[in-house]
Amino acid sequence: MNQPTEPKADKSGVRRHNLSLVLRTVHEAGETTRAAVAARVGLTRPAVSSLVEQLLDLGLLVESGKTFSGQAGRPGTVLKPADTGPAGLGVEINVDYVTACVADLTGTDRVRRTERLDNRASGAGEVLARAARIAAGALDEAAGLGLAPAGAGLALPGLVSGGTVRQAPNLGWNDVPAERLFAEALTALRPATAGLPVASDNEANSAALAELWFGSLGEVRTFLHLTGEIGVGGAIVVHGELLRGAHGFSGEIGHVVVDAEGPRCRCGARGCLEQYAGQAALLASAGAAGVPDLARRAGAREPRALAALAEAGRMLGRALSGAVNLLDPEAVVLGGIYPHLMPWLTPALTEELADRVVSGLWTPDAGRLRPASAATDAARGAAALVLRDVLADPLTHAVAAAGGRRD
Amino acid sequence: MNQPTEPKADKSGVRRHNLSLVLRTVHEAGETTRAAVAARVGLTRPAVSSLVEQLLDLGLLVESGKTFSGQAGRPGTVLKPADTGPAGLGVEINVDYVTACVADLTGTDRVRRTERLDNRASGAGEVLARAARIAAGALDEAAGLGLAPAGAGLALPGLVSGGTVRQAPNLGWNDVPAERLFAEALTALRPATAGLPVASDNEANSAALAELWFGSLGEVRTFLHLTGEIGVGGAIVVHGELLRGAHGFSGEIGHVVVDAEGPRCRCGARGCLEQYAGQAALLASAGAAGVPDLARRAGAREPRALAALAEAGRMLGRALSGAVNLLDPEAVVLGGIYPHLMPWLTPALTEELADRVVSGLWTPDAGRLRPASAATDAARGAAALVLRDVLADPLTHAVAAAGGRRD
Repeated sequence: MNQPTEPKADKSGVRRHNLSLVLRTVHEAGETTRAAVAARVGLTRPAVSSLVEQLLDLGLLVESGKTFSGQAGRPGTVLKPADTGPAGLGVEINVDYVTACVADLTGTDRVRRTERLDNRASGAGEVLARAARIAAGALDEAAGLGLAPAGAGLALPGLVSGGTVRQAPNLGWNDVPAERLFAEALTALRPATAGLPVASDNEANSAALAELWFGSLGEVRTFLHLTGEIGVGGAIVVHGELLRGAHGFSGEIGHVVVDAEGPRCRCGARGCLEQYAGQAALLASAGAAGVPDLARRAGAREPRALAALAEAGRMLGRALSGAVNLLDPEAVVLGGIYPHLMPWLTPALTEELADRVVSGLWTPDAGRLRPASAATDAARGAAALVLRDVLADPLTHAVAAAGGRRD
Repeated sequence: MNQPTEPKADKSGVRRHNLSLVLRTVHEAGETTRAAVAARVGLTRPAVSSLVEQLLDLGLLVESGKTFSGQAGRPGTVLKPADTGPAGLGVEINVDYVTACVADLTGTDRVRRTERLDNRASGAGEVLARAARIAAGALDEAAGLGLAPAGAGLALPGLVSGGTVRQAPNLGWNDVPAERLFAEALTALRPATAGLPVASDNEANSAALAELWFGSLGEVRTFLHLTGEIGVGGAIVVHGELLRGAHGFSGEIGHVVVDAEGPRCRCGARGCLEQYAGQAALLASAGAAGVPDLARRAGAREPRALAALAEAGRMLGRALSGAVNLLDPEAVVLGGIYPHLMPWLTPALTEELADRVVSGLWTPDAGRLRPASAATDAARGAAALVLRDVLADPLTHAVAAAGGRRD
């Protein structure tokens, strides 16, 4: 048997890289053995065993007693990603709710809390403090399951860059240092989270990543993802990567013009898609009290509700036909409130796409328009961003999570 | 001095790779020395010298007598890319003209022929045969300069994939095997071009690549490129790479809807941008006989011409504001007929962008809207695609060019 060529220093770049490689390989497989990992990554068995021991010590992998001979190499103990230990905290702050979730290393959503409330009625600092309170509650519950945060991801409804919400018209936020305010509020509630890495992104981007990683897209890797909320968020995924644009401000399909003479939008322009297909505009137009009420009215074939949904579908089709002509995606995914309303949105929407997309690939029966999976949302996507960091550099992030566990 | 670790076989993958590395290094530098190349690529001086000798033999590099001490290492003979030998043939077929150009390895356009004529009046086979005749004339002239084609690139005004024009509404083409028909027609005229590699792409993509490689974009690597012709073509460049979409059909900004109740387009839909800002629509609306006539009328402040240009500018701004909200580029480049018309298009266009782009980065004085460089067009971009192949694999392509020189 070959001797492993171990790097000299335990914290060397090579070993860090290989720890990540082994952890990601187990993560992708779900269940595997040391021998199968060695065959897959091209390292020797002893090298893989040494890396696996460290990942077991760090609480990132677990062994199960059973043996497993379905893959290359001799049977061995089964390895799995740990469902305790380092976890991702994901927090979505939207106009009319806050969701916090804690996902374990397998990506499974283990704890989830949502509070519905109008975040427009409070200042940004107060909203972020409220989000921190909800997150702290979720972390308490997660601690009972043996999960400790390796980081936090924030999903926010606006233009986000450098940890700051540059602009969120539907919340009335401008230049809000969201990461810092959230971290301060969380640390005040739970001192052990001091120094916890916090990242932030647009909520539409986070929802698209959740769909990509946990949804039912199959082979689709290039798609447009719309999230219908008070605002209409959009995200573009090309070959499995978010297309963020030159300044991180891509995907703002809610402000694509669909009728230049239309109503004034919160962004200052006229006739933005949001003024027809955003939740507030749609409910007002339909005379409905909420999304369930709207679906009930449409189901009862109430003319005003049907007309509002047909109009929203037509405007979605107009904006999406332009986006599809520009980007040529394989699919368009509708998330947020839209999956509940698709029976009534889809006819006008698909008609516009069939008429206006020049490639001819968007016929109504082509199946390119699809609802987001029920299991995906922006909070889960934000949590998954933390998990991606853990997979990319297990040593750093497992230690951060252990620090957070000390209280 | 270290001994070079030469690969054993002359045609090995390693040597091929290193030939490309050295050629690209000289190409990027413009003028350099063996020592500077060695310092740059991390190979030994003798290894670089051996590779340079082969590139000189293949006619891809030339030496000049002067010495050069401005860079790392001791002074040496100056190396430059050859301005004879393997060249790229680029052919743009558009609705009302055909352009053929031959670019040498430095990317310089050495021969250029344009014929203005209405390609809608003939069948696809006839148009491609005509393009081959113009290309053959350009190749004859290029042969007199010591240039031989290493390949041909076709730039075509429609949806192009797999060597075929799937759809070109402005030419009335559907499923035209353009690469094959062009190659057959060229070989019939010049038998020595038999087997010459032919590639094809959308003309807007080719024009965007020409702008990226030879234009004056400076540090800008993420941009949207519009080409105003009979149709309005668009191309998206992200971090220096074309965003082609899932099926190669991205960039169709000419068919983004700007007024849902507008005039019927050749694509079948209503109110496409092309019906306001395409050359035919714009000239008809202005009552002008051609682009120079339109510019003259606008310069004389003729109301009808000014109104048509303002309307085209407003509609361009509407479509572009949506594209910018989706993609967040650093700049938008206007090519084709637009650079000649910018004084009259720009005011309404920049006003729409300032009003509608939510990032707030598109103020009129931000300089993000710019004309395409005079030196770039789709034919040159198509030729440059051939040159990129030569730089990526010098051995194969130099031999192909030598084969083409045998007649």
